[in-house]
Amino acid sequence: MSKDAGTLVLVRHGQSEWNKKNLFTGWRDPDLTEQGVEEAQQAGKAVGERGMTFDIAFTSVLQRAEKTCQMILDGVGQSDLETIHDEALNERNYGDLAGLNKDDAREKWGEEQVHIWRRSYDTPPPGDDGESLRDTGARVWPYYMSEILPRVLRGETVLVAAHGNSLRSLVMVLDGLSKDEVTGLNLGTGVPLIYQLKSDSTVASKEVLGDDSGAH
Amino acid sequence: MSKDAGTLVLVRHGQSEWNKKNLFTGWRDPDLTEQGVEEAQQAGKAVGERGMTFDIAFTSVLQRAEKTCQMILDGVGQSDLETIHDEALNERNYGDLAGLNKDDAREKWGEEQVHIWRRSYDTPPPGDDGESLRDTGARVWPYYMSEILPRVLRGETVLVAAHGNSLRSLVMVLDGLSKDEVTGLNLGTGVPLIYQLKSDSTVASKEVLGDDSGAH
Repeated sequence: MSKDAGTLVLVRHGQSEWNKKNLFTGWRDPDLTEQGVEEAQQAGKAVGERGMTFDIAFTSVLQRAEKTCQMILDGVGQSDLETIHDEALNERNYGDLAGLNKDDAREKWGEEQVHIWRRSYDTPPPGDDGESLRDTGARVWPYYMSEILPRVLRGETVLVAAHGNSLRSLVMVLDGLSKDEVTGLNLGTGVPLIYQLKSDSTVASKEVLGDDSGAH
Repeated sequence: MSKDAGTLVLVRHGQSEWNKKNLFTGWRDPDLTEQGVEEAQQAGKAVGERGMTFDIAFTSVLQRAEKTCQMILDGVGQSDLETIHDEALNERNYGDLAGLNKDDAREKWGEEQVHIWRRSYDTPPPGDDGESLRDTGARVWPYYMSEILPRVLRGETVLVAAHGNSLRSLVMVLDGLSKDEVTGLNLGTGVPLIYQLKSDSTVASKEVLGDDSGAH
């Protein structure tokens, strides 16, 4: 009864300088590492090898995601494709933790408190601008419903190159995960998740192009 | 290009005992007043006069919305229709403000602070369980995407009888309102909002059956 609509491809950016240094990043704007560049190029290659092309791309306003997005478009021969950059897709804002080494943060606030900030669904980190995963979802979901989903339902193939937590918010809804399940979910860097949606907006199929263990 | 899908009817519950007494309500569970019953019956009559019937109904787990839902179904001759009750559609949780008289709260915390709690988009009221409008959206939107929208996109006519703030979260997305616009929005009690959705999930038309000034 519900036939297929379009395709949604989600990709978490490649490794950044701050991932490598083990710093909380959030809305800070470090570049990709060499490994991160390779991951992004690999993602573009994997999508290109499937003969997939996009109708539009969405990314955040942080360069690690923007560059990943561009490298994927380069990889499928669509370097000039219309790309919408919006802070609604930014990484979770880590508030006062941003820029801190994760080990230093554990020393300052204790292992358990830092674990809660990292893994709780609705406890924001310290600082006026700190966001919980729930807060991140609260800007990602309206944006998805207003800007992204309507395109997929019109049959387009849409690329979203973004961040661990902004994409987890989307995967939570697409995969029907509970709060507990989503807080345990890790997305691999540079690993395309290909969702074919039905015309009723639910998922017809999901394919993971690579190792989605989130180990990077 | 995008043809019409189904129909979404949103109705805020009729006046409750605590609305009448000027108390913060939130997740507390007062009954409808006599006026609230009349408003709910009037909503059912208005929908029934259009010859509209529903495929399914959604409501919260609070009796002012549940009773409003049932009275609307009675009004269209569908008293036994499948109805899903879920706390995802509950009113915004007012935390420690729940049960307080609004004037008493102003005396205790000051006019401006109470105004911020009532009208800010993302400042929760005091108390561990207090929710901002954003927090309310963060449970309403995933529920809408998972449970309600797919039915509308499959062509169903869906009733949602709920609360001022849970419905404001939905109207924000459907009408494309900014944070400032949604915090200034009031929904009239017992006033059906009839949204015809396109197959791409955007709004084809909106009709308000009654006085939507939010004056009640």
